[in-house]
Amino acid sequence: MGVYVQKYGGSSVADVACLRRVAERVLQTQRAGHDVVVVVSAMGDTTDELIGMARELNPNPSDREMDMLLSTGEQVSIALLTMALHAQGAEAVSMTGPQAGIRTDAVHRKAKISAVEPERVFAHLAQGRIVIVAGFQGLTPTAEIATLGRGGSDTTAVALATALKAERCQFGKDVPGVFTADPRIVPRARKLAEIAYDEMLELASAGADVLQSRAVEFAKNHGVVLEVRMTFGDEPGTLVRKEVTTMEDMIVRGVAVDTDEAKVTLLRVPDQPGVAARGFKDLAQAHINVDMIVQNVSEAGHTDLSFTVGEEDLPKVRATLEGHVRELGAQGLAFDEDVAKVSIVGAGMKSHSGVAFEMFEALAAAGINIEMISTSEIKIAVIVKKNVAGEAARRLHTAFGLDAGEG
Amino acid sequence: MGVYVQKYGGSSVADVACLRRVAERVLQTQRAGHDVVVVVSAMGDTTDELIGMARELNPNPSDREMDMLLSTGEQVSIALLTMALHAQGAEAVSMTGPQAGIRTDAVHRKAKISAVEPERVFAHLAQGRIVIVAGFQGLTPTAEIATLGRGGSDTTAVALATALKAERCQFGKDVPGVFTADPRIVPRARKLAEIAYDEMLELASAGADVLQSRAVEFAKNHGVVLEVRMTFGDEPGTLVRKEVTTMEDMIVRGVAVDTDEAKVTLLRVPDQPGVAARGFKDLAQAHINVDMIVQNVSEAGHTDLSFTVGEEDLPKVRATLEGHVRELGAQGLAFDEDVAKVSIVGAGMKSHSGVAFEMFEALAAAGINIEMISTSEIKIAVIVKKNVAGEAARRLHTAFGLDAGEG
Repeated sequence: MGVYVQKYGGSSVADVACLRRVAERVLQTQRAGHDVVVVVSAMGDTTDELIGMARELNPNPSDREMDMLLSTGEQVSIALLTMALHAQGAEAVSMTGPQAGIRTDAVHRKAKISAVEPERVFAHLAQGRIVIVAGFQGLTPTAEIATLGRGGSDTTAVALATALKAERCQFGKDVPGVFTADPRIVPRARKLAEIAYDEMLELASAGADVLQSRAVEFAKNHGVVLEVRMTFGDEPGTLVRKEVTTMEDMIVRGVAVDTDEAKVTLLRVPDQPGVAARGFKDLAQAHINVDMIVQNVSEAGHTDLSFTVGEEDLPKVRATLEGHVRELGAQGLAFDEDVAKVSIVGAGMKSHSGVAFEMFEALAAAGINIEMISTSEIKIAVIVKKNVAGEAARRLHTAFGLDAGEG
Repeated sequence: MGVYVQKYGGSSVADVACLRRVAERVLQTQRAGHDVVVVVSAMGDTTDELIGMARELNPNPSDREMDMLLSTGEQVSIALLTMALHAQGAEAVSMTGPQAGIRTDAVHRKAKISAVEPERVFAHLAQGRIVIVAGFQGLTPTAEIATLGRGGSDTTAVALATALKAERCQFGKDVPGVFTADPRIVPRARKLAEIAYDEMLELASAGADVLQSRAVEFAKNHGVVLEVRMTFGDEPGTLVRKEVTTMEDMIVRGVAVDTDEAKVTLLRVPDQPGVAARGFKDLAQAHINVDMIVQNVSEAGHTDLSFTVGEEDLPKVRATLEGHVRELGAQGLAFDEDVAKVSIVGAGMKSHSGVAFEMFEALAAAGINIEMISTSEIKIAVIVKKNVAGEAARRLHTAFGLDAGEG
């Protein structure tokens, strides 16, 4: 009998009614013949409410105390879900992250799971119980409570699935799976039956917010089969695994749009070794993630150096670089928030040449101007004006045969 | 440098503003030269809100899961209070009950503390930190979270004070100390400088709801000096200890009124051995606490057997006894909710005869009829009609020289 790990996020357990429905869903899985371990997040807005109280008392609360505070959110969820299961006649037991054997390093608020000691979970499963585990938390080497950071519940689920040698790790979502594109942007998007880990990771970094990248990385490293599916619904979802065995020979698996990008340009910097490095070192020290970097062709020993960052980091970028423009030898600093990143992702690109050409052609045919380009082995991303990003995604979706009814 | 343990209940930490003021209070204590350990309850109505959600999901939630749920309330309090202390520049650290070494038996929802392992608390104190401990909770022998039942935070405080050999265990309240009577009933009541453990225990069982009896018992057994005082205020409170060294030679320390009593009478039961025993065995099995028991003088081999129970237990008493009236040989069953218990308590009674006489005389002079009487070594309690209980208390308060300005 295989172990199924299921993870339900905050919106799946937003209130008492949701908890009752999740309990039904969990019980169904057990009745289908599986040992079930469930990982849950805090209910709805609990975490934000707790953070609000903390900030009222202390604008800069200690990480350790924030962990002490925030870990209660999941503890409430596990107890209530277990009670809901009992009410439906199930044998179930709740466990905090520490009780479930989740061991972490000592970095409060963004701890990494160092080990899972699954003996107590196994013991409960052996007794026929459904085990409900608090996501997002674990125990440090000095027996302190640590949280894994936002989205850490996904990682808890995959780590438990690994330790329990689970057959599958399912993620209950408010969407039925991973789509070829965001249906709000591309109405003809369709659900994928399968996707490879690497494709999923590229889609996540391209702005498709389905699973935490850390969790997918973890699953990839340990070969855990993931399934993204509706929390409330019976259709199969999207499987995420190493080898994708779909009959369709898709070159491009998905199209993603990220409108939270902003473009920064250092104008006319000297085209000398070390200039870029100095600028990016400052940004790294300010904990700013730089996404795409493009350096234009040099003109008379000078070049424009453009890069993109998350829009919310723009004030920090401004603060970090504005004083250094002169030092870097640049003539100025330009910011453009009116941009978006459109990406196509597909493992099939590795073996197909000409994908980039097809992409640029499709965009050119639609009169869409490309401002920056970046590529990886299985992804091509372009920066375009924000107002044409949706149109770009739709054109690419059609051009690569992803529209519903095709393929 | 002596350790001070301070306990703050739910109303002292009702909201963020209260937490900030409690933090000031705690910091003052440290600055006065003490090592400080603080035990806090859940904020305001948190516990009731959690119970409400639980009951919505399951009318009969498992005790283990209730403990998992309810223990989060205190965990939120300790984290927030610690953050408030940090904001005021203090070194402080929060600890859950299990982290603070509170070990309990395995009885969920009403666990008893079996041991305190104070090493981690001592280590933090040695580093100059204020230690904030979650009350009401501990760890069972199988590493489960257990709660001590309502009011268990008082017991946590006393148990920690014992293990830490604390100089004093202070209880922050919304009253400035223990009074000779409830000032709402007896306006001339005054605060006591001191009271003995046994007097405190009798007052608690007589209806004066200041400290949990379990906590006072624990303090008595381990010689921990308690102090009841205002959470927000600077006057000294009331010391609770073994030897009361007050200059005033008080025979009666306090007067208490309990209006939550109800009287039950088995009418004309045969005056034979075993009849009372059978009735009370049934009540005990139904977990009904019987307080006073009085058997009237026998008349022709029959007697009326009266006893008092908590008013809220009356439906259970009715359900338990009504079917057995005939079996018990009684002619009927009578209930009277229109009663109250008025008690006088004082260790001085041991060495003073005539206290009961004085009491009855004072009540008689006021035209107050006594329905039942019960005595212990340091307490005399009477049952009177509810509407004269306040008057009875005021008369006794005056008669025994307790009125403010006297004694």
